[in-house]
Amino acid sequence: MTSVKEQLDIIRRGAVEILVESELAEKLALAAKNGKPLRIKAGFDPTAPDLHLGHTVLIQKLKQFQELGHEVNFLIGDFTGMIGDPTGKNETRKQLTREEVLANAETYKEQVFKILDPVRTKVVFNSSWMGPMSAADLIALASRQTVARMLERDDFHKRFSGQQPIAIHEFLYPLVQGWDSVALEADVELGGTDQKFNLLVGRELQRQVGQRPQTVVTTALLEGLDGVNKMSKSLGNYVGINEPAREIYGKLMSISDPLMVRYYELLSDVDLATLARVKIGVRGEADGWHPMEAKRALARELVARYHGADAAAKAENDFLQQFRQRELPDDIPVVVLPAAGPVWICRLLSEARLVESNGEARRLIQQGGVRLNGEKLADADLEVAMSGELILQAGKRRFARVIFQS
Amino acid sequence: MTSVKEQLDIIRRGAVEILVESELAEKLALAAKNGKPLRIKAGFDPTAPDLHLGHTVLIQKLKQFQELGHEVNFLIGDFTGMIGDPTGKNETRKQLTREEVLANAETYKEQVFKILDPVRTKVVFNSSWMGPMSAADLIALASRQTVARMLERDDFHKRFSGQQPIAIHEFLYPLVQGWDSVALEADVELGGTDQKFNLLVGRELQRQVGQRPQTVVTTALLEGLDGVNKMSKSLGNYVGINEPAREIYGKLMSISDPLMVRYYELLSDVDLATLARVKIGVRGEADGWHPMEAKRALARELVARYHGADAAAKAENDFLQQFRQRELPDDIPVVVLPAAGPVWICRLLSEARLVESNGEARRLIQQGGVRLNGEKLADADLEVAMSGELILQAGKRRFARVIFQS
Repeated sequence: MTSVKEQLDIIRRGAVEILVESELAEKLALAAKNGKPLRIKAGFDPTAPDLHLGHTVLIQKLKQFQELGHEVNFLIGDFTGMIGDPTGKNETRKQLTREEVLANAETYKEQVFKILDPVRTKVVFNSSWMGPMSAADLIALASRQTVARMLERDDFHKRFSGQQPIAIHEFLYPLVQGWDSVALEADVELGGTDQKFNLLVGRELQRQVGQRPQTVVTTALLEGLDGVNKMSKSLGNYVGINEPAREIYGKLMSISDPLMVRYYELLSDVDLATLARVKIGVRGEADGWHPMEAKRALARELVARYHGADAAAKAENDFLQQFRQRELPDDIPVVVLPAAGPVWICRLLSEARLVESNGEARRLIQQGGVRLNGEKLADADLEVAMSGELILQAGKRRFARVIFQS
Repeated sequence: MTSVKEQLDIIRRGAVEILVESELAEKLALAAKNGKPLRIKAGFDPTAPDLHLGHTVLIQKLKQFQELGHEVNFLIGDFTGMIGDPTGKNETRKQLTREEVLANAETYKEQVFKILDPVRTKVVFNSSWMGPMSAADLIALASRQTVARMLERDDFHKRFSGQQPIAIHEFLYPLVQGWDSVALEADVELGGTDQKFNLLVGRELQRQVGQRPQTVVTTALLEGLDGVNKMSKSLGNYVGINEPAREIYGKLMSISDPLMVRYYELLSDVDLATLARVKIGVRGEADGWHPMEAKRALARELVARYHGADAAAKAENDFLQQFRQRELPDDIPVVVLPAAGPVWICRLLSEARLVESNGEARRLIQQGGVRLNGEKLADADLEVAMSGELILQAGKRRFARVIFQS
């Protein structure tokens, strides 16, 4: 069995905050002594059916707890999903129907078990205790928290100050999430840093009903492919774990070197010594790992995690061949555009930011300076279908790998 | 059948606001045309088991609707009573148990039927639709209103600005009360002026679900015996309709002349001509009714309403005899004190504001200037039981009728 100190080292890696670490040490010691694993909770609001790498930061942390022998409760907020989670949003979110929520939940499970061990994971639905709850019980729950405390939450505070509407039911959401911890008797709850307020409500409610309050572990929010915004489906800057091996590999090869370091820290399983070599390499120092090699290794590792080692090797091979055959560089920036019908080639070049204007695009094509998937273009009036993906080249050095997202 | 104009005149009398009067006129006309009475709603939170004259202002208005042929729904908020009504309170109110609420509701009914016709009154309990409501339904209801709108309510606004806690469940109360109007499909809702916000929430919810919004009629809040504060049990300045005839008569005889005018307006059934004579009399003009006679007539009318004409005549007779025998004036001010064990006579004289200090009381007793129930006192160390009632006299002109409230 792993010692308490070793367990803490593993839990600490990549965690932003542990509230309170000394309590967690006590719980781990007690769990070891009694041979009774800790109950770990993480809640997922089933509003997005496709998991992306941003979600996996947390799920990897759950996996670590699982490998340390603790009981992971993967809570699907099928009840709360029907309320809508206002976290980080600046307007009231649309409520999902029960059918939508359940369909999303199924998709979640399929994906999560690519990371977690299905046999050792308890999948729980909060509708099993919230569904039978009466209006009167919910009122009693609502009496446990004040309006002022709720308005301390960052996003509520901003919306309230900015005179943007907050519907009253949104105040009930953190209480329901907190009550989930009471129902599960959770020892530890994991969440992104944007969930900290809600996780602490769980602690408070558990204390109020006489349970030992859960330890709160927050994990970092992963930046998307743009390196700036939080990875999210709506921004289109994401890598879905259900995407084809070739897509995942290609998208990861397109990220900047500093973002690669961040992904190594939050997503990779490499040890701390290797991580140090990646960092040194990005700084251009002699002992480091060459950034291009490190990026390939990261892309291989993550593709292998979701599609297996063979698929990873094949994706790398295809990727390199494609680029070598066409004498293309192997770190072409990815541009994600919504899939649609045919588009005028000049407009596409503009949208991919390869030219300043449609006029420049037309001149460049007429001069023979534009290639589509390696073929020189002659017709400046060409229409191109916006589906699948393609590689554009404008002039000698401007490239874009355009992916049409449907 | 009473014409729409006559009905409006009756409804308008003593009402503070009618929102919106033109809508009410339409509803009354339609009701007359279709021979279908309007559904009138008034809600009572069964937290106080004893009705006092303050409550009867509203109940008299219900009775008027009833006499005009409309359907009165006397709603007992047995569900909302378990939440506690924060209206006008500056702190979170204690929640009642279901048993307490039901016991209080029974007491309500007994008293209300001294005014309303039990056969033509529908007594409804909001637990019949709120009890089976699920937490999910309540969340959907909560989504219909915003936090900002709720904080516009006067008392919430004051508490929030004053950093006094507001529990979240208190925001649910106006929504539940509004939903009662939806469940009843109310055409008109009556309430005190302090209920205006909640009554308007009912209008909004009805509009949202596609019902014709209820007309809101607010009635004045009655001042208590002190002529200043709202009549309320907790302030001790009230006249309970279940009190003995003699108590009601005596308390009403103790009020000031201006307060008598107010009580005539809000409580009496006298016609407008008589009301005018009362006002003129209080101004001391020749054509007026002598205030002492008018006060007796009011006391008789209200005692008769709750105890019958015979009891009223007897109460008046006893009252006059008692005061004539003891050569006491018949408009002695009433002082209400909490019932307790024995108290030192000097302290009691101070608390009844008949003397400036205990020292003055002692000197006055030693000079033979204090009477208790008409008997001259000799012993300045006397202890008096604080129960029932007694009449104190200090000097020639200072009197107090002290009632010990348990």
